Amino acid sequence: MPVPVILDCDPGHDDAFNILLAAAHPAVDLLAVTTVAGNQTLEKTTLNARRVCAVAGIRGVPIAAGRDRPLHGAARVAENIHGGSGLDGPGFGEGEPDVPQDPRGALGLIRDTLLAHPAPVTLVPTGPLTNIAAFLLAYPELIRRIERIVLMGGSAGRGNTTPAAEFNILCDPEAADIVFASGLPITMFGLNATHQVRATPDVVARIAALGTPLGELCVELLTYFAGSYREVYGFDAPPLHDPLTVAHLIDPSVISLVRAPVTVELTGTYTRGMTVVDLDGVTGRPANVDVGMEVDVPAFWDLIVEAVRVLGSRG
Amino acid sequence: MPVPVILDCDPGHDDAFNILLAAAHPAVDLLAVTTVAGNQTLEKTTLNARRVCAVAGIRGVPIAAGRDRPLHGAARVAENIHGGSGLDGPGFGEGEPDVPQDPRGALGLIRDTLLAHPAPVTLVPTGPLTNIAAFLLAYPELIRRIERIVLMGGSAGRGNTTPAAEFNILCDPEAADIVFASGLPITMFGLNATHQVRATPDVVARIAALGTPLGELCVELLTYFAGSYREVYGFDAPPLHDPLTVAHLIDPSVISLVRAPVTVELTGTYTRGMTVVDLDGVTGRPANVDVGMEVDVPAFWDLIVEAVRVLGSRG
Amino acid sequence: MPVPVILDCDPGHDDAFNILLAAAHPAVDLLAVTTVAGNQTLEKTTLNARRVCAVAGIRGVPIAAGRDRPLHGAARVAENIHGGSGLDGPGFGEGEPDVPQDPRGALGLIRDTLLAHPAPVTLVPTGPLTNIAAFLLAYPELIRRIERIVLMGGSAGRGNTTPAAEFNILCDPEAADIVFASGLPITMFGLNATHQVRATPDVVARIAALGTPLGELCVELLTYFAGSYREVYGFDAPPLHDPLTVAHLIDPSVISLVRAPVTVELTGTYTRGMTVVDLDGVTGRPANVDVGMEVDVPAFWDLIVEAVRVLGSRG
Amino acid sequence: MPVPVILDCDPGHDDAFNILLAAAHPAVDLLAVTTVAGNQTLEKTTLNARRVCAVAGIRGVPIAAGRDRPLHGAARVAENIHGGSGLDGPGFGEGEPDVPQDPRGALGLIRDTLLAHPAPVTLVPTGPLTNIAAFLLAYPELIRRIERIVLMGGSAGRGNTTPAAEFNILCDPEAADIVFASGLPITMFGLNATHQVRATPDVVARIAALGTPLGELCVELLTYFAGSYREVYGFDAPPLHDPLTVAHLIDPSVISLVRAPVTVELTGTYTRGMTVVDLDGVTGRPANVDVGMEVDVPAFWDLIVEAVRVLGSRG
Repeated sequence: MPVPVILDCDPGHDDAFNILLAAAHPAVDLLAVTTVAGNQTLEKTTLNARRVCAVAGIRGVPIAAGRDRPLHGAARVAENIHGGSGLDGPGFGEGEPDVPQDPRGALGLIRDTLLAHPAPVTLVPTGPLTNIAAFLLAYPELIRRIERIVLMGGSAGRGNTTPAAEFNILCDPEAADIVFASGLPITMFGLNATHQVRATPDVVARIAALGTPLGELCVELLTYFAGSYREVYGFDAPPLHDPLTVAHLIDPSVISLVRAPVTVELTGTYTRGMTVVDLDGVTGRPANVDVGMEVDVPAFWDLIVEAVRVLGSRG
Repeated sequence: MPVPVILDCDPGHDDAFNILLAAAHPAVDLLAVTTVAGNQTLEKTTLNARRVCAVAGIRGVPIAAGRDRPLHGAARVAENIHGGSGLDGPGFGEGEPDVPQDPRGALGLIRDTLLAHPAPVTLVPTGPLTNIAAFLLAYPELIRRIERIVLMGGSAGRGNTTPAAEFNILCDPEAADIVFASGLPITMFGLNATHQVRATPDVVARIAALGTPLGELCVELLTYFAGSYREVYGFDAPPLHDPLTVAHLIDPSVISLVRAPVTVELTGTYTRGMTVVDLDGVTGRPANVDVGMEVDVPAFWDLIVEAVRVLGSRG
Repeated sequence: MPVPVILDCDPGHDDAFNILLAAAHPAVDLLAVTTVAGNQTLEKTTLNARRVCAVAGIRGVPIAAGRDRPLHGAARVAENIHGGSGLDGPGFGEGEPDVPQDPRGALGLIRDTLLAHPAPVTLVPTGPLTNIAAFLLAYPELIRRIERIVLMGGSAGRGNTTPAAEFNILCDPEAADIVFASGLPITMFGLNATHQVRATPDVVARIAALGTPLGELCVELLTYFAGSYREVYGFDAPPLHDPLTVAHLIDPSVISLVRAPVTVELTGTYTRGMTVVDLDGVTGRPANVDVGMEVDVPAFWDLIVEAVRVLGSRG
Repeated sequence: MPVPVILDCDPGHDDAFNILLAAAHPAVDLLAVTTVAGNQTLEKTTLNARRVCAVAGIRGVPIAAGRDRPLHGAARVAENIHGGSGLDGPGFGEGEPDVPQDPRGALGLIRDTLLAHPAPVTLVPTGPLTNIAAFLLAYPELIRRIERIVLMGGSAGRGNTTPAAEFNILCDPEAADIVFASGLPITMFGLNATHQVRATPDVVARIAALGTPLGELCVELLTYFAGSYREVYGFDAPPLHDPLTVAHLIDPSVISLVRAPVTVELTGTYTRGMTVVDLDGVTGRPANVDVGMEVDVPAFWDLIVEAVRVLGSRG
């Protein structure tokens, strides 16, 4: 039976591939997509989610917009990585995508989806955790209908937006703390894991070789993304962070996990937003998170290429 | 011409080897040893420095005691690593070591040493940075007589005493901040570097094979140290942190350096005492520290074994 | 037309009087009561709200329980002030009060109340701001149906639970920050104001002289409260904090207001939970709060005594 | 026998009056004046100390310059209060004052003064506590020669430079923490006390009526100071903070004291530099400071006017 999933995302190049992977693979039942401010403003990430679904022929998955800023303070975006649209690279055209926006909003859509689905649902956040934290506060009585949370964010090593903090967590550290301290089963794929899956030229070539319009669009996305990572971080190839979440749901052997205590630094001058992962067990705190560690990189890319192939051939 | 050096230390097993290395190698002119509270109380680290010099036949190097607690708050010790004496393992006997304690105190000894030496002197702190910070505050007019500071502390990766912080820096984060922000040339060997130099059984065997009493004592030190690291961190062999400092002075090719902005986190709930190393240049701050990265491990151990050999054969 | 009000409270001796005042006075239309963990656990504060309504003959006002702990971390209670029941002093009997608990929960009750009332409603929180913050996050689309927030909490001077922080804000500083930064009109009555209204013996005597069972119960509440404040703070008479909120709604001349920038300290070692009130305008921040300053103490007590009289005579 | 005193100051209008008071009154033996960056840069505060001594005929009191910035971070000045010179108002002329600067520096002068004086000496800091903290770190063996520390700084109520922090403490919170935690007897006169002593027109008139050049200069100082406080804080008359310290040494009845636990907030976002004074004893911390509370305002001004009279008549 496929894993029922709600994606909460801020597309974003790597979020886009995660939507494709979740929609394409039979092991996943993509129930809903919700959006949050992060890689770009809420308006843009919501539009981008609709665009991705439209070009990939993903129909019938409701898409609703969530919160436009973190629980505290002002929103930040990652325009230097994802461009002015949040999904720079391909031309999506001027018109509205022919995939609608659900009027219930992210919290309402999550609520209704949880209530409607017979079994507990897995939440897969790949942006700032604002919507998820707000949902936990808004509907405590529905927490038991959440199976687990499988997220991209944080790091068991270095950060990216600051030396200590990864972008998603830094955008809303208080939301992250609410999620990590919620008692729900949490699986976290941070930079220590995601920096292993870099879209090297051979990966791009495999996708190009599919010869489909969707493949071509994916190549454009990866090409833009590569340019950003080359310029900002000096990387040879860009890490495709977010799809590790769904890849893990499809095939747990894609990435190893270590269970460890994880806390979110809220108060540091230089470390706010850091996920403090106690791999050595020196804090004495209870382990609350399964932390992604070593990736089977070829297996990961096989999943990605196959997803683009499947969706591209449907069109 | 040998590098004139003042060691400021808290022996401590790895500090002991650093004293040996500095005293044994002709490329270093060990002018003075000052002690600080850290691995154990000031009283014990001072006694240990004298003991190490006594057993190794290091004469004529003045040893003075510094500060017994950090600039703010209470002292912590690393008894779980270094034992109740701070230098557990060998039997040093009950009596006083026949190497005296200099009555001038650490700050007075550093002051006099800087004033007496014709050229600027390199400070090599391998414990909490309390004495060094206090000296910079006490004698601003002598700062120009300091050539540079080459220290063991912090990390460009994970911590050890907490997930984020290394012991020396955590013991006195404010002192570390004063040192790192001093404008002096700083070279830092943190856990990311020092965890590469582990005293494996073959290293211990080489030292044992020297067949000298000093070699035997060193084996006892490393054996105790190995036990601590096995128990506390599950390491197969213990990292001999501190001597990377003097090894670097002897032969800079022993470890590569990267220049980067480094700040000390003073205010984090979970990250206080972390050295925040901006290897990606995302902060826009000026680079103030040469950070040790990749160690030539065999070259390092050759220096250590040779130092024990030289001093052991002098006795 | 009376002011439509939702009380969000944690009874609590002074909360109890605020319920009485809101229920008794014709200038206020008490639409709902919601409870939160604070002076005691959520279970106890909810029971206490029902008990107060039961003994005072307040029928038809729905009472729903909210959140049982702050947004982050663990709950604290004020047992040293309010006793083991949260409303020590009178004997309320063993049985269940004959006022029911609304099953919708605090957020659901606030939502339904806002949707049902034709005009925007005033929220009057007198406990930790957890429910209010959670509501703002859960139902952003309903914020425009909130007229304003009139709260007891914080201080423009010293704290009580710590030297810097007042109890309600300290219980959930992040919730307070969300409320204070919400952009809604906020009126705050902090300790600088509420410590002016102390239930002196002559006040107690006036209530006793009413000669009603409710008056007697109020005397018992004030007597217990006086004992707490005498013991913990050395006060001659206890400050009846919370009813300043409703008193202000009834008659704005009861207390003067100064508009000022107010922020909530989230990160201080000794000051977490402090409301930082910029009365001198030195921060340059925009004024976001009307801060209660000077109380017309006799006018305040007249309102309280009259409320007890009115409700006591209805029974 | 007069109280032997070292003034550590950052003149500054109110510091100037404190120098006059200490030099004029027979109950005080002014041994030395040291300067620190604060109201203006170190260069300016040192020049101002020499200028004040020159115009007041204070000879034979050595004046040495201390530290030009706080222990951590960059210096701030109070140009909006004290003007571009740090002592705006009077014309001091272009030339160098005929009172020299002692070449030993502040720490050296304090050291020598403590060593030379037969009895323990009282330190009277009225600027940031940088020099005092540095001295405690530099010369721990001389701490027993300090009788006590009587300082102007902090507040038992509101701040001035921020809503929570007073200028002197905010300039160097870490130095203040070192001093407050030193174990030395500390007497603190904060804004809650010093705001009681405002140089009203009748005070200014009394000084003008002395008819001396020094009196005239004092009037010019107070007139400028009044303008600053009127403009920045809207005060009718400026508070002459610093001389409460020496006034207390001359006559303890000038101001009442309460012994309380005081800590310095180092980490708050909005409260850094606040002196957290636990007047209610809610923290359970040991009382470490005598906190000035209620001033006998006429007695204070009598001391000030008399000091100006005495020194003015000597010239």
